[in-house]
Amino acid sequence: MKTDAVKTDVIVVGGGPAGIITALTAKSIYPEKSVRLIKEIGDGVIPCSIPYMIRTMSDPAENVVGNLPLQNAGVDITEGKVVSFDTEAREVRLESGEELFYERLVLATGAKPIVPPIPGIDKEGVFLVKKSLSAAIALREKVLKAKSVVILGGGFIGAEFADELSHIDGLDVHLVEVLPKLLQAAFDEEFCDDVGDVLAKAGVNIHTGKRLDAINGKDHVESVTIGGGEEIPADVVIVGIGAKPSNELAKEAGLRIESNGSIWVDSYMRTSINDVFAVGDCAVKRDFFTRKKTPIMLASNATTEARIAGTNLYGIRVLRQIHGTISAFSTKIGGVSFASAGMTCGACEREGFRIVSATSLSPDRHPGTLPGASMLKLKLVFADRTGNLLGGQISGGDSVGELVNVVALAIEKNVNVREMDMMQIATHPLLTSAPTVHPIIDVAHKVLAELRTKSNEMSAPKG
Amino acid sequence: MKTDAVKTDVIVVGGGPAGIITALTAKSIYPEKSVRLIKEIGDGVIPCSIPYMIRTMSDPAENVVGNLPLQNAGVDITEGKVVSFDTEAREVRLESGEELFYERLVLATGAKPIVPPIPGIDKEGVFLVKKSLSAAIALREKVLKAKSVVILGGGFIGAEFADELSHIDGLDVHLVEVLPKLLQAAFDEEFCDDVGDVLAKAGVNIHTGKRLDAINGKDHVESVTIGGGEEIPADVVIVGIGAKPSNELAKEAGLRIESNGSIWVDSYMRTSINDVFAVGDCAVKRDFFTRKKTPIMLASNATTEARIAGTNLYGIRVLRQIHGTISAFSTKIGGVSFASAGMTCGACEREGFRIVSATSLSPDRHPGTLPGASMLKLKLVFADRTGNLLGGQISGGDSVGELVNVVALAIEKNVNVREMDMMQIATHPLLTSAPTVHPIIDVAHKVLAELRTKSNEMSAPKG
Repeated sequence: MKTDAVKTDVIVVGGGPAGIITALTAKSIYPEKSVRLIKEIGDGVIPCSIPYMIRTMSDPAENVVGNLPLQNAGVDITEGKVVSFDTEAREVRLESGEELFYERLVLATGAKPIVPPIPGIDKEGVFLVKKSLSAAIALREKVLKAKSVVILGGGFIGAEFADELSHIDGLDVHLVEVLPKLLQAAFDEEFCDDVGDVLAKAGVNIHTGKRLDAINGKDHVESVTIGGGEEIPADVVIVGIGAKPSNELAKEAGLRIESNGSIWVDSYMRTSINDVFAVGDCAVKRDFFTRKKTPIMLASNATTEARIAGTNLYGIRVLRQIHGTISAFSTKIGGVSFASAGMTCGACEREGFRIVSATSLSPDRHPGTLPGASMLKLKLVFADRTGNLLGGQISGGDSVGELVNVVALAIEKNVNVREMDMMQIATHPLLTSAPTVHPIIDVAHKVLAELRTKSNEMSAPKG
Repeated sequence: MKTDAVKTDVIVVGGGPAGIITALTAKSIYPEKSVRLIKEIGDGVIPCSIPYMIRTMSDPAENVVGNLPLQNAGVDITEGKVVSFDTEAREVRLESGEELFYERLVLATGAKPIVPPIPGIDKEGVFLVKKSLSAAIALREKVLKAKSVVILGGGFIGAEFADELSHIDGLDVHLVEVLPKLLQAAFDEEFCDDVGDVLAKAGVNIHTGKRLDAINGKDHVESVTIGGGEEIPADVVIVGIGAKPSNELAKEAGLRIESNGSIWVDSYMRTSINDVFAVGDCAVKRDFFTRKKTPIMLASNATTEARIAGTNLYGIRVLRQIHGTISAFSTKIGGVSFASAGMTCGACEREGFRIVSATSLSPDRHPGTLPGASMLKLKLVFADRTGNLLGGQISGGDSVGELVNVVALAIEKNVNVREMDMMQIATHPLLTSAPTVHPIIDVAHKVLAELRTKSNEMSAPKG
């Protein structure tokens, strides 16, 4: 050990939500330990709010994640890039040459945007979605001066950017997605179609089922070519086709890496090497129902993992595990909220789950003529024998944002359709659907009716 | 049996939410049976929306509960007043002289407003809260011409009327409550104070800790006297101090009646006499945690009971029961949403529960500067040994309306604080708090910290 090296008890690498919450949790559970967070990006932002830094926020700096909560909690902060770590020497090396020693190391290195191998991808005016204020400001300045923006990728980030940009007067917005529908990973077709309709109504030009073949222009992007020939003028191209785990440090240090590039961890976020943990987008996620690896990257899951790691750094203090990841998403596009938790019908089909599902449509106020009312659409999917809830998809007003958490909790607690039918819920004219038609109850009721019909058919005399 | 009597398989008495849902459920589960609903009030309205018939609804008729869903489902409807029933002859008698025979009888007779023994209570201009369009129109017409309205009762209905009336230009609104705080049955003091502040800011004159001693005037109310002397001018007095079960028919027919006036039922809503069921406000409710009788009267609970009764009319088809009633309320007052589920700290204290509780305050958007953001306040109460969730209280924006259902479901599924700390939730900048500070997680985290401190204190060496 070099004499000038700094020793910290707990070192967390990464300044995103996973890193921050790990550091805060560690400091609150082990107040006697020193905790240091190393962050590469000095002006990091709340990741999921990046699209709203273009126009909704009057000042994009509103979205900066400050150091104050960490400092107040007594967490030390180092700004710098970790270039390697040594699990024998328990040593972390920074680009600056600084060396730090640890008792426990937590990797919260996150993910980096996937760069598609498209001719012209490195031209000026092509932007990946990066998690810093400076990157967001650069994009904002370009977009606000642009005449035509092409967004590549019709997932959440792409759809949210398209929505945000659709409010800019005089700007042509194009959304290009190679799959047949938008948001296809999170929703069944009818919800994907609703998202498409909402964006089209907002004036977004949607190009689904189209590959982006080339980005054209001299040094700067001037147009893109899609779907084998069509050319769309573009001053700016935003690439939002997903991210892959940042695993370079882990790989080099000899940690076990999964086939999808994520860092292997056990239920307590421990990696394959003693006293090294991984949390958030860089750590493997397993699906709640199939236990397969899933590419979900959500701040909500990341922070849950951070609390698990932070609590159990020095021995398993609380017996608690991730029972698998429930994909629980929400978004608001064109003024309509969309949310999904668990498995879609499509995912169930691909995975071979036998299911029953139903959809309910009712106003989210009662009577539905009250001011502020929107139509609430809820689709729930259940296993056809046990009746266990497998997933839910919702569209409607703002209440969707917490209603999806009722669904997510019901999945996590293995609630079945009979229990949902009996669920005790609060309702109010100005806030929810009527108790007589609350969509959770209504869907459960429809599914029970279908299950009864099925069981009658099964018990009917044959021949 | 008289020859001219009509025979129906299932007779439901009462046209409120409990009666309607019982009839619809019965018809869907037993399509081969005839189902008849007898309703006394022809122009019944959605009960919880009655306050909003004064001003928020441009036409109070919007709130009428129509017969169409019943008719479409094949339920027969009789308008009339049941005067008695005979459980030996299985016969129901109407005021019109008509007689109907049943195989199964369901009482959904509801509740009737409590009339306090105040001098002058029978004067013109004094209104009980009745569940019909004609009653609501009569009140609306009076209120819109009034200069000063006194509302008696600072529970949900009183506070909601006060809020609704506060928007009428030039109208003095007075709210009189004998208890020290508003909404004291549903909330702890700090939330009650918030409700009071919101109403006071809306211009409502609040008189808490004051008894209404007399209603003065000749034939018509002119003023009221409160708190031992103060006189308040009043053209209209609205009495909203609660309701008691309508049990006269049941009592006369010999059904077992509880000490609080509700009709005794088992877990399947069966009364003490074979083939007679009771659901909704007239049927006994037992508290989820204490199993004591509770005076909760909510359409949401009523409809749950209706589905239980409707399903199990001809034998217990599905093993399901009410595991006790969770009081799950929500309301919106002065533009702020308030909700409560389960037990308050005050209720826990009265019932001798040893508890730990914490409160979290965070914006319901992230960053909190985004348009539409409100501060969300969440207080959760847990049992101090097992960590089981006992109750929650919330105030904030519209998302409170479904967030309380996350809390209600967590209570119903016996979720403990460790599970809540790990709960997988969906978050979005435009719809919820940040995942790093979501109030459910934040409160759980605070409670866990307190429990750790307690257990450290307990295990510390003594003396």
